Amino acid sequence: MRVALLGFGSVGQGVARMLGEKDLGLTLTALADSKGGIIDPDGISVPEAFSRKEKSGSCGGQRPKVSALDIVNSDAYDVLVEVTPTNIETGEPALTHIRKALGLRRHVVTSNKGPIALAYRELTRLAGEKGVALRYEATVAGAIPIIHTLRHGLLGNTVAALFGVMNGTCNYILTRMEDEGLSYDQALGEAQEMGYAEKDPTYDVKGLDTALKLVILANTVWGMDAGLADVQVTGIDLITPEAIQLAMEEETAIRLIGEAIPSRDLLRVSPRIIPRNHPLLVEGTLNALTVVADMAGELTFIGKGAGSIETASAVIGDLLYIRERYAGIPEGRPDARRP
Amino acid sequence: MRVALLGFGSVGQGVARMLGEKDLGLTLTALADSKGGIIDPDGISVPEAFSRKEKSGSCGGQRPKVSALDIVNSDAYDVLVEVTPTNIETGEPALTHIRKALGLRRHVVTSNKGPIALAYRELTRLAGEKGVALRYEATVAGAIPIIHTLRHGLLGNTVAALFGVMNGTCNYILTRMEDEGLSYDQALGEAQEMGYAEKDPTYDVKGLDTALKLVILANTVWGMDAGLADVQVTGIDLITPEAIQLAMEEETAIRLIGEAIPSRDLLRVSPRIIPRNHPLLVEGTLNALTVVADMAGELTFIGKGAGSIETASAVIGDLLYIRERYAGIPEGRPDARRP
Repeated sequence: MRVALLGFGSVGQGVARMLGEKDLGLTLTALADSKGGIIDPDGISVPEAFSRKEKSGSCGGQRPKVSALDIVNSDAYDVLVEVTPTNIETGEPALTHIRKALGLRRHVVTSNKGPIALAYRELTRLAGEKGVALRYEATVAGAIPIIHTLRHGLLGNTVAALFGVMNGTCNYILTRMEDEGLSYDQALGEAQEMGYAEKDPTYDVKGLDTALKLVILANTVWGMDAGLADVQVTGIDLITPEAIQLAMEEETAIRLIGEAIPSRDLLRVSPRIIPRNHPLLVEGTLNALTVVADMAGELTFIGKGAGSIETASAVIGDLLYIRERYAGIPEGRPDARRP
Repeated sequence: MRVALLGFGSVGQGVARMLGEKDLGLTLTALADSKGGIIDPDGISVPEAFSRKEKSGSCGGQRPKVSALDIVNSDAYDVLVEVTPTNIETGEPALTHIRKALGLRRHVVTSNKGPIALAYRELTRLAGEKGVALRYEATVAGAIPIIHTLRHGLLGNTVAALFGVMNGTCNYILTRMEDEGLSYDQALGEAQEMGYAEKDPTYDVKGLDTALKLVILANTVWGMDAGLADVQVTGIDLITPEAIQLAMEEETAIRLIGEAIPSRDLLRVSPRIIPRNHPLLVEGTLNALTVVADMAGELTFIGKGAGSIETASAVIGDLLYIRERYAGIPEGRPDARRP
């Protein structure tokens, strides 16, 4: 199956590396970042793409110039992997890329929260009309295959509620305030030094990132058409060391929780008090999601919510799902081997 | 899709109830327990089956008598659901039922650990030759869709190791020894009173149940052909309150862990010391599984490991997977609805 990859940041580089290293039946035939692209029907050399990126600042560099849109409109690929940076206001340029690719009857896999949170109904309807797949496992909770689990593993269950720690930056800050008695500003500074928080941390600490993920999960599970405006959002930036201390004295802890409870019309992101022994109470940059389902009961999934290769794991799981489901490949693990 | 259900104990009753109550595109057309069966191409009334069971001791009762084998050999079904009791020495009668159904090109879904642990290679090869599915999510960790996650969600990952708390009986006993300072015998007696342990608890407390599940997971992930004899097994029956106390003093706890590490040729079930803050350390009858994968890193899944409806959740997830994959039903959640 031929893969076109748009975006060569942390996620794109992880996906490219894994496509280069692993024998998955996937060939990278097109690649672009914002500065330029390359198409090669015989398969792109991933080490050469990294070397071009280092030398010229772009992984592409084909002459005459090839843009991301040229790639989308080409017949060089079967699946588009859209991993350009998220824009939560317009969804662009990813929204245009995804729309065009689906319109051309190509499958799409994305880690980009913008288009999925902004245009979920439109895009899933378009994919359905064209008979192709739109997969977005990597938009929520990094390496945890939560969307796969909700769409397939738990099929037949009615989901009553979803709760989750979905932002590693906030969870790291709260864990450090707890463990070391730091103030919010001290813990944020430390998270920035460690590379866990952006220089402008607004998007994470104000709860917007969690809210986007919550919208994506709610739309997936309940077929809602929710957007950011439907979520009540409170961040972690006003939490005091005293509040943290008080929670600890009561054998609880404070975490930024996204919660969706459709029977109460509730989509909310806010700091919540969690009992010490609850599985959702994870430390550091981990993510955790609890699903309450009518048959399965309460299930919790814990894992790494970010990282180049961790997010690539989600993208590649989606690619192989499409390969099995649409290309008629027998089901099973390609890495099956005797120990 | 037409479903034949063999077995009307706890799991079978759960599956029957859910097929009766939920609109899943699945019709129960045949049903049997060890005493008798019934075939009805128009769909069997589940309340009437329960009522027959109560009155006559059998859910079937059709005259002339219909046996489980008659059903397997009939053309009344598309998928066989085999949930008769586990026999870990012979795998029977389930092994014969499953072999015959696969031979007749029917899909099979089972919660029965015997055939999957004893004849994994033979049965998966047969299913492959006949172009049908053999699914067994319900054999391991109840409601946690771990096999689905390993076979699909984490596809593309190389799994380096698996660790798990897979027996709720043992976990309950150890939790009670920890919380209340009970002796092993006191905690076992309590578990028996609560219905969490059998009158003869050997199969659970000696680690055999966990070992079977470990074999099934290892065969699934690594394509092994392991059996019970390949697992080093130590149970929990010799654990003293002093050992539990010592673990607690060091901020750890003792749990019965199944672990598979193919690079070390290791398949082992034994009581292990787990750090207090490790996600795998769950309380009471919960199950938990940690997967170590090359891309995704360490992932932990926590949920109910047993129960009639919880296990039915796994069986129904498999049935709907088959319906989507083989009957050409578009993917998606049938319960999708606005809140």
